[in-house]
Amino acid sequence: MKRLLPLLLMSVVSVSAQQQPSATNERWQLTVDFYGATRYYRLDLDQHDTAHLSGTFNGTHLTGTNTNNHLKIEGTENGNHVVVDAQQDHDALTGIVTFGEIASPLVSRFTATLVKPLPHTTPQTHEFKPTTYYRQYSALNKPVLHINPGDTIHTTTVDAGGNDENNIKRIAGGNPQTGPFYVEDAMPGDTIAIHIQKLRLTRDTAGSNDNLVQSAMSPSLAIRTRDNHSSILWRLDRKHMTASPESNSVALKNLKVPLHPMLGCVAVAVSPSDAPPPTGDSGYYGGNMDFNEIAEGATVYLPVINPGALLYFGDGHALQGDGELNGNALETSLDVTVTVDLLQGTSTGFPRIETPTQFIALGYSGYLDDALKDATGNMAAWLANNYKLNPSEIGQLLGVAAHYRVTEVADRNSGIALKIDKSLLNNLNVPHTP
Amino acid sequence: MKRLLPLLLMSVVSVSAQQQPSATNERWQLTVDFYGATRYYRLDLDQHDTAHLSGTFNGTHLTGTNTNNHLKIEGTENGNHVVVDAQQDHDALTGIVTFGEIASPLVSRFTATLVKPLPHTTPQTHEFKPTTYYRQYSALNKPVLHINPGDTIHTTTVDAGGNDENNIKRIAGGNPQTGPFYVEDAMPGDTIAIHIQKLRLTRDTAGSNDNLVQSAMSPSLAIRTRDNHSSILWRLDRKHMTASPESNSVALKNLKVPLHPMLGCVAVAVSPSDAPPPTGDSGYYGGNMDFNEIAEGATVYLPVINPGALLYFGDGHALQGDGELNGNALETSLDVTVTVDLLQGTSTGFPRIETPTQFIALGYSGYLDDALKDATGNMAAWLANNYKLNPSEIGQLLGVAAHYRVTEVADRNSGIALKIDKSLLNNLNVPHTP
Amino acid sequence: MKRLLPLLLMSVVSVSAQQQPSATNERWQLTVDFYGATRYYRLDLDQHDTAHLSGTFNGTHLTGTNTNNHLKIEGTENGNHVVVDAQQDHDALTGIVTFGEIASPLVSRFTATLVKPLPHTTPQTHEFKPTTYYRQYSALNKPVLHINPGDTIHTTTVDAGGNDENNIKRIAGGNPQTGPFYVEDAMPGDTIAIHIQKLRLTRDTAGSNDNLVQSAMSPSLAIRTRDNHSSILWRLDRKHMTASPESNSVALKNLKVPLHPMLGCVAVAVSPSDAPPPTGDSGYYGGNMDFNEIAEGATVYLPVINPGALLYFGDGHALQGDGELNGNALETSLDVTVTVDLLQGTSTGFPRIETPTQFIALGYSGYLDDALKDATGNMAAWLANNYKLNPSEIGQLLGVAAHYRVTEVADRNSGIALKIDKSLLNNLNVPHTP
Amino acid sequence: MKRLLPLLLMSVVSVSAQQQPSATNERWQLTVDFYGATRYYRLDLDQHDTAHLSGTFNGTHLTGTNTNNHLKIEGTENGNHVVVDAQQDHDALTGIVTFGEIASPLVSRFTATLVKPLPHTTPQTHEFKPTTYYRQYSALNKPVLHINPGDTIHTTTVDAGGNDENNIKRIAGGNPQTGPFYVEDAMPGDTIAIHIQKLRLTRDTAGSNDNLVQSAMSPSLAIRTRDNHSSILWRLDRKHMTASPESNSVALKNLKVPLHPMLGCVAVAVSPSDAPPPTGDSGYYGGNMDFNEIAEGATVYLPVINPGALLYFGDGHALQGDGELNGNALETSLDVTVTVDLLQGTSTGFPRIETPTQFIALGYSGYLDDALKDATGNMAAWLANNYKLNPSEIGQLLGVAAHYRVTEVADRNSGIALKIDKSLLNNLNVPHTP
Repeated sequence: MKRLLPLLLMSVVSVSAQQQPSATNERWQLTVDFYGATRYYRLDLDQHDTAHLSGTFNGTHLTGTNTNNHLKIEGTENGNHVVVDAQQDHDALTGIVTFGEIASPLVSRFTATLVKPLPHTTPQTHEFKPTTYYRQYSALNKPVLHINPGDTIHTTTVDAGGNDENNIKRIAGGNPQTGPFYVEDAMPGDTIAIHIQKLRLTRDTAGSNDNLVQSAMSPSLAIRTRDNHSSILWRLDRKHMTASPESNSVALKNLKVPLHPMLGCVAVAVSPSDAPPPTGDSGYYGGNMDFNEIAEGATVYLPVINPGALLYFGDGHALQGDGELNGNALETSLDVTVTVDLLQGTSTGFPRIETPTQFIALGYSGYLDDALKDATGNMAAWLANNYKLNPSEIGQLLGVAAHYRVTEVADRNSGIALKIDKSLLNNLNVPHTP
Repeated sequence: MKRLLPLLLMSVVSVSAQQQPSATNERWQLTVDFYGATRYYRLDLDQHDTAHLSGTFNGTHLTGTNTNNHLKIEGTENGNHVVVDAQQDHDALTGIVTFGEIASPLVSRFTATLVKPLPHTTPQTHEFKPTTYYRQYSALNKPVLHINPGDTIHTTTVDAGGNDENNIKRIAGGNPQTGPFYVEDAMPGDTIAIHIQKLRLTRDTAGSNDNLVQSAMSPSLAIRTRDNHSSILWRLDRKHMTASPESNSVALKNLKVPLHPMLGCVAVAVSPSDAPPPTGDSGYYGGNMDFNEIAEGATVYLPVINPGALLYFGDGHALQGDGELNGNALETSLDVTVTVDLLQGTSTGFPRIETPTQFIALGYSGYLDDALKDATGNMAAWLANNYKLNPSEIGQLLGVAAHYRVTEVADRNSGIALKIDKSLLNNLNVPHTP
Repeated sequence: MKRLLPLLLMSVVSVSAQQQPSATNERWQLTVDFYGATRYYRLDLDQHDTAHLSGTFNGTHLTGTNTNNHLKIEGTENGNHVVVDAQQDHDALTGIVTFGEIASPLVSRFTATLVKPLPHTTPQTHEFKPTTYYRQYSALNKPVLHINPGDTIHTTTVDAGGNDENNIKRIAGGNPQTGPFYVEDAMPGDTIAIHIQKLRLTRDTAGSNDNLVQSAMSPSLAIRTRDNHSSILWRLDRKHMTASPESNSVALKNLKVPLHPMLGCVAVAVSPSDAPPPTGDSGYYGGNMDFNEIAEGATVYLPVINPGALLYFGDGHALQGDGELNGNALETSLDVTVTVDLLQGTSTGFPRIETPTQFIALGYSGYLDDALKDATGNMAAWLANNYKLNPSEIGQLLGVAAHYRVTEVADRNSGIALKIDKSLLNNLNVPHTP
Repeated sequence: MKRLLPLLLMSVVSVSAQQQPSATNERWQLTVDFYGATRYYRLDLDQHDTAHLSGTFNGTHLTGTNTNNHLKIEGTENGNHVVVDAQQDHDALTGIVTFGEIASPLVSRFTATLVKPLPHTTPQTHEFKPTTYYRQYSALNKPVLHINPGDTIHTTTVDAGGNDENNIKRIAGGNPQTGPFYVEDAMPGDTIAIHIQKLRLTRDTAGSNDNLVQSAMSPSLAIRTRDNHSSILWRLDRKHMTASPESNSVALKNLKVPLHPMLGCVAVAVSPSDAPPPTGDSGYYGGNMDFNEIAEGATVYLPVINPGALLYFGDGHALQGDGELNGNALETSLDVTVTVDLLQGTSTGFPRIETPTQFIALGYSGYLDDALKDATGNMAAWLANNYKLNPSEIGQLLGVAAHYRVTEVADRNSGIALKIDKSLLNNLNVPHTP
């Protein structure tokens, strides 16, 4: 059977395109038991008078009635028929949702809670000291901290091998993550913006090695480097922000490479009905993107799949060349400060980055040609949604403005970043949402 | 950080290459707490006299002493140093194992149980009626049945969408699996051979659709077929073993395609320290291979990663063209009879198939060129290990004997099967292990 | 600037789709001097009365006048405007053709000759002994023989290294070809069908080697086989039709592999305005397809690009595994008998093969994923054009009927063959053109 | 038969590695008739006394005798045996060269001319006005100008469609090239360095379009942009060096993109024994590299394949985004000033670029993953040859220093550029040749 698509995510995208937030009176958060698998949906309801309702579920517009707190609303769009039949008890709603193709509808029980607006609060900074780390982007791990949108988290990460600031192994390797952080009010269909305020080194060493990953080697290069399997310890000079390899190489003994700390992994949890990805993988949820522009000053945009978003990050690199050619970068522990914002009702669909000067659309796939197509589609959607460019305008702009970089070739997915200078977009004669 | 390698598997391969089963007196099954992650290893011990021991752990030869049931054995191989320091209490062993590079050893607690030879029993046939299904190849799901090597399982599978023989949806879709089955005596480093005795249809319909998967379409074909999104119901004529689409197509109204039932998925559980793959994925553990020669009469060889192997299967197809071009094949429920054998002390490393006339090495990767390389490497290892061919002989043989087929392009991994006629291998002038 | 498309071919395809051969009174063969590059076109004219004409040029319908043998006809289709302004002198026509986008028309001189129907003749068999061989699929090489459609050619080919039946090197290696053969009446937009009647070995040896091509090797396999660089002489037993390697391998000393002679290359010349492909390359013109089903009993369909088609063939293999994994197959000289038919007014666009039991659409590209897409598009076009299947029917049929094989990975292009059993197509409830 | 390797080039590389230029008394330029194909080789001879000689041919060291101007020298290296048997008549040498594997030597006639040192001359600037343009990188086109190493050429190029500075079409499109230029003293095994001094626009318009190339589009993006097929005229503001599209788009009406003129194509001719590549292709000879850093201030290094190098260039772009996503960039005519230097006795093997701040190794192949491997291998060879780094040092350096960009995906080959900052290489503690 076929490739498992992030179905929830895709439907959510269409929600965001159609919704009229101003017309919504009530917003419900549904937890659907879909034949044993948990799925989350949002139900927007608009009470017109004592008896008549309209609403939106998963991108389908519904109308119906409310009889003594018994709601029955239905609608059909694009061949899909939706019926919600439920009983309200104050802030709780329980019932049955039927949806899917008209000929073969799927019937599921759900419970829902009324979403209340967050009280306006002053943004806070949370000091968080992790005591456990996770190695899967699972929705089932208990959140380590709840924050409000706009809040800042100051915390630390262990390195990819699980070693902390004292080089003590705290957990098995494989990019153990700090988190998950629960962002209040974040719901499926929203986007979270993770502003990387500070990434600071917490020790004077980083671990790496001298071999090249298989994806970077032709047979002849593989044969030439077949004896490369040394671990390399890099000395980090935190004062001058340079790194030097502690190998016995004469040629490299004076090498000082400027440091550029970055997070290899930033992610949200995937749906509890999907297998949780290992923290070495990447996809629509972000993950192990290993892109060296995810550094101080950058903002990472990720789609919200679960209530609370469930943000994870880790896998700090003191420095990484494009491709992460050794399989490892300069792996080290970090002191991390991020501010998390919430963009309600819009979904990026796939990870995007903003730096002070550029917009960056990422594409990750099993091979670079496909990753480039995904990055291009990601940017095309960005230009269509936020700048209202039509396909011809998108074609013209990309032809002159696209910069493509390889992010990494070290993992199951390889990545391509498509970058456009903001200065060009500022020239556009269009109303836009940044 | 880098691609997560199936480390356990790889070390196990080297075990199998080096071990001398005849010299082993005692075999211990270790459960190692590797910094919070569970890993399984085998420890073979040979008691030379009351005080002196030798053994093998994860491919490394060890020697040492036994002092009043306090065992201390160590060894160094290929730059790795291993120390086992443990206390024996009858059939239980508890202690500490230290291993890894000499400069940075990793220290883990373990418990172990003595492996006792299975009593010789007459092979049995187990009638098993599943009541639950799983959607991840996890080692944490409780085995539904324990069998002995040589036993036969007669059971059923629901279709990829979770529908049973009455077309009742029993569970959310995504290739829900029957199993896991625990095979007594199977240990990491072994191989299980699943002989597919019978695959019989249990209903008269199969579900499919008319779109083509993205991996099979150039932009121009995508544009031409952009309106293909119909579900197609196929009628299965179980008497004449043909399928016909129940669409309103005039052209296809007389089409009768010969049925060829197959299992889309056959898998073992992965290590509990790794993220469990979704049942739509494939890899060294088998999984959603979607290869239409995994049918009656074929034997599937899979490496054992966990004690008991933990065998899963499902995703029956009444018929599937190469590639599984619609994302779905003719998805249906099946009645399944398999016999499971155990090949102790040898590991295939990657899935292989044997049919009455051919040996088939599989390769799965994000793109076909890489899958072809993996299939070729898989077959080269087979010829080297089982037929003792040297690299030049392997090159000569593959040049004239290789048949390559595309298995599927519908999932995250695409697959290539490299097939060699057994009749050619019978010509080889070598002692071999089939 | 962009990928050079086979422009002539593509325009010709649209000609064939639209033309009404029955309405044509006169057919002219134009040689156009397109800014220094030679291009061939067909002009179909229909003289309605003494003064009024209609016609078709390159897919565009034209109308106009004939004033004392001065023809002026024009038309516009799909944004392209065509004007033909010419003087007729019996069977010759000279003038100017203007075509291209309306805003920027391109003006070219041309000469044309009237195409006369071939007299009906009894098919002949031509004995042809080559004295020269070519290493590019050029339209500028003088034809070595003119034949009529339906005629048979009996000739020989040297091996890929240029060695003849006595193992005498006649020309530098690189797949030197026999031909080009001029097929009377073949014009751009037609298809030639090359029926392979006989392929017989002319010597008792074939040359090959033991290395594996780069495209088949992962880094680890490359390292294992890094010392494979021996030439291997294979003994051909023409009586029992088997091959055995003459190496000092003990393991292979009794190996006898059944022979299966095939042509590695069958091609037509490309347009004289394009760079002639080397005879190691493949594409829409056929070429070095290295597909082991191009053997006795198969028919190869190739599009006609030049007047006379200009057929080439060579690179005989006594036997080749899929992929041509050694870079060479069992390279040998052949005795070849082919019959060439002409399918007027239809173009395959891309090479196709017919065997007694299957239709085979080929795809060749720089990587297998793309080749698979091309093969699928090739078959989809075949089913649409010859069987009038709509996109949904094509999707349903391919899902159950596609067989994909890898043809070769040894050259700049890799190839995939999509095969469908004729027995299934015979079930279709449609009028079709075979 | 297999992929045609650039054999001459590869052998030449090994020459350059081994030669001791100081020990050479005489250098001969051989033109070898290799079974009908022309190949060029260099023969270095060292006359020890009246009767005894040593020398080097194609990387093989030879010794022998000179008897009355009858030279007979031979040698064996790596399983290849070479015999040169020739008669000298002043500055001419004619004879027979035998080479190849010992068991199957190949015998070819040759003529040779004595290479005399160029007189030292003051570098000149040549004003060259092209009257013809070429569309293949052929060694058979007569050089349009002879220059000395160090000389400067000031000339013009037409755009990819063949249009000149007045937008008059001068020749059929497909990147018609200015050249070939013959560089005196350049011989196979050398490298030419083309310093791009000035690239100036010669008109106020550039042609492009709004579609996206197939290689950049997933099926869904292809469907969304399926109606993109407009030509777009871009206005070039040469004073402010910006470009604006002259489309009726409201959104883009104020767009001003900074111009960055570049050469899409820079190439040397390939061996006359190989099929000449079309000017839309790329490879070891350079060609249509479509890399937007081949601009003012850059130096392009290309291997010399033919005597005189035979330099071509063309396909000017006023501006090009990475990938050349529209198939066309902003195609325009240019005024070009280049200085050509000769690096004798060293071969780059594959194109390399030097800018004021970076070294750039290019890789071109049918898909990006392979192009990345080729670029990595190209840079690894650069670091090994010019900086004497060992494989471990190369691995360590690439891991922190590699920047990968996509050059283009618009042609048969896609390209990747691996860039390293010169500032890092200046840190290396090694003697090096820049």
